Amino acid sequence: MLSRMTNTQVRLASRPKGFPDESSFEVTTEPVPEPKDGEIVVRNHYLSLDPYMRGRMNERRSYAKPVGIGEVMVGGTAGEVIASKNPSFAVGDRVVGAYGWQEYGVSNGRDVRKVDGKVPLSAYLGVVGMPGVTAYVGLYDIGEPKAGETVVVSAAAGAVGSVVGQLAKLRGCRAVGIAGGKTKCDYVVRELGFDACIDYRAPDFADQLRAATPNGVDVDFENVGGPVMDVVISLLNTFARVPLCGLIAHYNDAEPRGLSSVESLLWKRVKLQGFIISDRMDRWPQALDDLATWVAEGKIRWRETVADGITSAPRAFLGMLRGENLGKQIVKLV
Amino acid sequence: MLSRMTNTQVRLASRPKGFPDESSFEVTTEPVPEPKDGEIVVRNHYLSLDPYMRGRMNERRSYAKPVGIGEVMVGGTAGEVIASKNPSFAVGDRVVGAYGWQEYGVSNGRDVRKVDGKVPLSAYLGVVGMPGVTAYVGLYDIGEPKAGETVVVSAAAGAVGSVVGQLAKLRGCRAVGIAGGKTKCDYVVRELGFDACIDYRAPDFADQLRAATPNGVDVDFENVGGPVMDVVISLLNTFARVPLCGLIAHYNDAEPRGLSSVESLLWKRVKLQGFIISDRMDRWPQALDDLATWVAEGKIRWRETVADGITSAPRAFLGMLRGENLGKQIVKLV
Repeated sequence: MLSRMTNTQVRLASRPKGFPDESSFEVTTEPVPEPKDGEIVVRNHYLSLDPYMRGRMNERRSYAKPVGIGEVMVGGTAGEVIASKNPSFAVGDRVVGAYGWQEYGVSNGRDVRKVDGKVPLSAYLGVVGMPGVTAYVGLYDIGEPKAGETVVVSAAAGAVGSVVGQLAKLRGCRAVGIAGGKTKCDYVVRELGFDACIDYRAPDFADQLRAATPNGVDVDFENVGGPVMDVVISLLNTFARVPLCGLIAHYNDAEPRGLSSVESLLWKRVKLQGFIISDRMDRWPQALDDLATWVAEGKIRWRETVADGITSAPRAFLGMLRGENLGKQIVKLV
Repeated sequence: MLSRMTNTQVRLASRPKGFPDESSFEVTTEPVPEPKDGEIVVRNHYLSLDPYMRGRMNERRSYAKPVGIGEVMVGGTAGEVIASKNPSFAVGDRVVGAYGWQEYGVSNGRDVRKVDGKVPLSAYLGVVGMPGVTAYVGLYDIGEPKAGETVVVSAAAGAVGSVVGQLAKLRGCRAVGIAGGKTKCDYVVRELGFDACIDYRAPDFADQLRAATPNGVDVDFENVGGPVMDVVISLLNTFARVPLCGLIAHYNDAEPRGLSSVESLLWKRVKLQGFIISDRMDRWPQALDDLATWVAEGKIRWRETVADGITSAPRAFLGMLRGENLGKQIVKLV
């Protein structure tokens, strides 16, 4: 009987001002419901933690509706069907969905997709999932890198940035990462194969980045914003492209933060374009197919930082916002 | 003998700090040279004055090399061939070129184009010239307006902005201008046919602009920058486009000026793209052809503010930077 099983969940307790802490969240439990006709019940094995979730904790208008106070936090999940009254799904099917910060999910199945076993289940939340597709579409479709050009990506050790640089190398570009600290920078260069990675905390960060981009910057894949973005923008070449993917440096600001210079975007004829990967569903099949192939061939490498158990999700999320993770931050639920 | 004729010129005397004054310029004279083999001599009838010229007065790197101290100021000109040792040109040919702030120009002819008489000669410096093509390419190619969308254009009474709004109307859009003062706003609405025009000097400018764009803003054709641009950006719809054409509010700043918010560009998935019309020479023939047709058909209207004589150019230029002109600012030289 599913109803005798307990679904532990993490809900939004209050809207944080500035940087959140664990008091923004509350842990709740409820019985796992039986599926109604057409429904499936999924045991979530992995929960994805991503920077965009910070935006959903705010009241202010964004591209998606905020999480309501008392609602389960949103999030991508990968798991296994444990009960099905939907002819399209069998018990044991492995699925990727968006059941949020909880151990079990129930839905009509339209919002999940079945996955094969080509890569480990958790990878469908990362390199062969939303972050990987974000890297693929942002770099290839908006960044339009050409062989020989220089691609700079911030948060280079993270789930998206780590893929961006490797995709840039596959395209024949110079890939330069930006990350926080020596451990991450070493990982980005030695394990992921970027040409260089600069520690944004270094006092001479701007000089180091300039030295690492002797031919200027043709693509700024922007994950961070703030003063780091201003430095990259100062190094852009004429006709550079800036896929604007994330602004993690801004997400905890009470007031909007800007760009320090807009004039150079004009005289350098820069294209800066914000994008959200859920707008581009038509590109997912091709992107996932390519990414799975390249991962299988060893052309794209990845790592995960794994927290254990649903109740660890708040602390792991806060750590990710502080940049403590290396690679994709996930929570293992089983 | 041409050499007995005097060519009066305006040269850059010094680089201004902040807003320039007439001391930045000096008037000089020299004899008109005889053409060498392959050369033509042109009597300039009209000089175009444009905001981009302020950028050329600065030392700092821009998309074009600065005017050197002591050099003739750069600028577009329209005139008549008065001597030719080039078989492609005959005395009396009317040509548009870039001979700068002077009464006569000499060149090998490769940098000028002959014009027909479909529109008055001065119009080849405006609505059927660089500013018109700038409006056409920036709006249609970068702004990509669709029927029913709302286009906002700043400096709406100016050479570029006045064409942008009329092109938007031809495309079936709502056209909302921004200009300084009641005279300009009345002109933009009553004579050019924009749906509305808001005075950016009004204390409730932001509220007025919001009221004039009840369905939000799909295209911000940006000529001005600064706080006015920040207001327009706050009204952008999802998937809005921002052709970044000019930033006249910034040109006299000693320090670069930024955007007050970059985060909304991400979550609204905005495309912001700087462009310079000289990069897009392939689009000129089609644009000029369409513009000449629409002007002839009365679908596009224009006005000029005319200064008289080359020595009036500095004062007219400074007036244009202060927004004193209505429509295209030119200097009549003959």
